[in-house]
Amino acid sequence: MNIDLFFTPLQVQDELGLQNKTVIVVDVLRASTTIATALKNGARAIIPVATVENAVKYASTLEPSSFLLCGERGGKIIDGFDLGNSPFEYTEDKVKGKTLIYASTNGSVAITKTKYAKHSIIAGFVNISEVVKFVNENSDDILILCSGKLNRFCIEDTVCGGMIAFMLINGKSKKKFNLSDSVLASIKLYKSYRKNLLKMLKESEHGRFLIELDFEEDLKVAAGVDNIPILPIYSDGVIKQYTKE
Amino acid sequence: MNIDLFFTPLQVQDELGLQNKTVIVVDVLRASTTIATALKNGARAIIPVATVENAVKYASTLEPSSFLLCGERGGKIIDGFDLGNSPFEYTEDKVKGKTLIYASTNGSVAITKTKYAKHSIIAGFVNISEVVKFVNENSDDILILCSGKLNRFCIEDTVCGGMIAFMLINGKSKKKFNLSDSVLASIKLYKSYRKNLLKMLKESEHGRFLIELDFEEDLKVAAGVDNIPILPIYSDGVIKQYTKE
Repeated sequence: MNIDLFFTPLQVQDELGLQNKTVIVVDVLRASTTIATALKNGARAIIPVATVENAVKYASTLEPSSFLLCGERGGKIIDGFDLGNSPFEYTEDKVKGKTLIYASTNGSVAITKTKYAKHSIIAGFVNISEVVKFVNENSDDILILCSGKLNRFCIEDTVCGGMIAFMLINGKSKKKFNLSDSVLASIKLYKSYRKNLLKMLKESEHGRFLIELDFEEDLKVAAGVDNIPILPIYSDGVIKQYTKE
Repeated sequence: MNIDLFFTPLQVQDELGLQNKTVIVVDVLRASTTIATALKNGARAIIPVATVENAVKYASTLEPSSFLLCGERGGKIIDGFDLGNSPFEYTEDKVKGKTLIYASTNGSVAITKTKYAKHSIIAGFVNISEVVKFVNENSDDILILCSGKLNRFCIEDTVCGGMIAFMLINGKSKKKFNLSDSVLASIKLYKSYRKNLLKMLKESEHGRFLIELDFEEDLKVAAGVDNIPILPIYSDGVIKQYTKE
């Protein structure tokens, strides 16, 4: 099994080339965390869109009471939208039974780049064991796609990706896996940060940015390993909770 | 001082944006190592070109006995060229007094992307202290530009970049520096590999590829910290040895 890791969606130069792969999209701060929260709290479906324009366009096709416009630019709720990108906003009373049109700056873009993947699942620390369980039941090649920040490397996504790779190979024969340099590096980084994931988030560029915007509590949610055991899967343009057939 | 690190030249989306920066181009396997060797052995100048076509076109403007066509594709010498990309080929009797038109797959491409930089210098393990000395004498913002391999992450360039960053900040007040996530990660990776750089090279994707092509000796040269104390500087399209005015 080949395992590869991209640091940013910019590296996906060949979207059709993903069609035999299971892609694991990672956006710890905050799309992965927020999407898992929304599904846990009963959101019917989440439609990721790459731009604000696409969000509004998509909304115009739906019955007004059925959906919410969600997302951020510069970390803050988009003008005229219903919800921003903090998991604390995605409460049951807000999202239950609703379709969420979701335009985050990085995660949404990364997710929409995986539309041709055999499977596309969404991973954070909060649901990491669910992700690993799903991957272990398949034998596809794996691409861990870190969302990064505006096409820049983010330490938190890479550490989460490294944790996923570590969990996938741990205890198994090394011969089974062909790991790229980026996967090996991500595992090293995971091992060097694993004792205190919250500290790593607080020291990260993106974490410091969110703390400045008064979202420090979001970091604590994002650092909670396996606290939201939900597996979001993206298929036919829609994210839903995965349920085994 | 801001220090940033790009894992691949693909991340340079704004070449003009480099004009206030000192860019340190890293291609451990093998451009940095080979360029330093060529200059040590008396090459007059090196003209990096991004494509084979550009190399041939450039050559047509020069007096035939004054230059050599150098470079590789897929690790091997380009058909009809004088030298490939192994430092062992760049002996004094071959290169002394010559202009080298140099088309490597990754390093040449990365270098040509820095043409607008305030300074662009070329770094490997072999000349790392020379690089750090130069940067310490300036106070520009720094971009460490890893050449990677075909726009993919390479561990060896990142570890070398991390070593440069570590040497730059070591012993100084941390407040003086603003380090990006990628720099912090590269320093972690350097620390985890520094005890055996040659082993890291042998285990890297690119190292394994070169060993298959029978270039294992090149890895030993590339791992030799400060063995070629030459500072190549790229300016007006030409790489020469830096000499303090």
